[in-house]
Amino acid sequence: MADSRFRVKAHSENQAKTIVKARQFEIVVDEPAELGGTDTGANPVEYVLAAFAGCINVMAHVIAKEMNFELRGVKIDISGDLNPARLFGLSYEDRAGYKQIEVRIKPDCDADAETLKKWKEAIENRCPVSDNLQNPTPVKIEVKA
Amino acid sequence: MADSRFRVKAHSENQAKTIVKARQFEIVVDEPAELGGTDTGANPVEYVLAAFAGCINVMAHVIAKEMNFELRGVKIDISGDLNPARLFGLSYEDRAGYKQIEVRIKPDCDADAETLKKWKEAIENRCPVSDNLQNPTPVKIEVKA
Repeated sequence: MADSRFRVKAHSENQAKTIVKARQFEIVVDEPAELGGTDTGANPVEYVLAAFAGCINVMAHVIAKEMNFELRGVKIDISGDLNPARLFGLSYEDRAGYKQIEVRIKPDCDADAETLKKWKEAIENRCPVSDNLQNPTPVKIEVKA
Repeated sequence: MADSRFRVKAHSENQAKTIVKARQFEIVVDEPAELGGTDTGANPVEYVLAAFAGCINVMAHVIAKEMNFELRGVKIDISGDLNPARLFGLSYEDRAGYKQIEVRIKPDCDADAETLKKWKEAIENRCPVSDNLQNPTPVKIEVKA
């Protein structure tokens, strides 16, 4: 299977608000007032969790189908803690991002515990967002003035 | 500085569409038709790039202010390649997520090349999303039937 390329183009509306275009979709990223923004959209690290939730839903259904059980729906609750100290340049003790991410998946289905264990492991192994969070991903940043 | 907790709650609207709540914000995640969705929103891996763009904008301004140069605005272009084969269970040769992410930042400012080099390095070091992509993040997934 060939690689697929995904792409976004973004511009700053102000110091905390970003307008992002992904194909025909416009995504507004901002920060709450206490993080210096105008609170007109979810913030970057909330979008990371939203992306993860969306990915888990897709994988949950793909894999349930492969495993031949009916998945009527799924609820997903994700949280993570991070210390904003590095972001603000106040301390470099903690890492910048989430220290850990906790996910709770509540499937609406009749599958037994053993089946759900395998289902969960396959979701975790095959979900692109899970992979990019759990394993290192090379990032190349270029500045063009 | 104390840790901050971020959280989203999501439910599947169908096999590819997810409605995510982050505080007062609703985020629609879907997939294009070729990936099994109804294309009513950006897809999970596009949201990852959107989150990264939003985070870079915030850091770009925070750090320009610290470095005492005027940043009038910033344009950000991010792309990444991934092979959907693992997602679909067709092959386990490639990783599931982005193999590499490429970022282009175009600042509107009068800073010289040396200043922009330091600025870029600080963005990369202190941006939470950059950290969570470039370095491993523990993920704990729990299934509650």
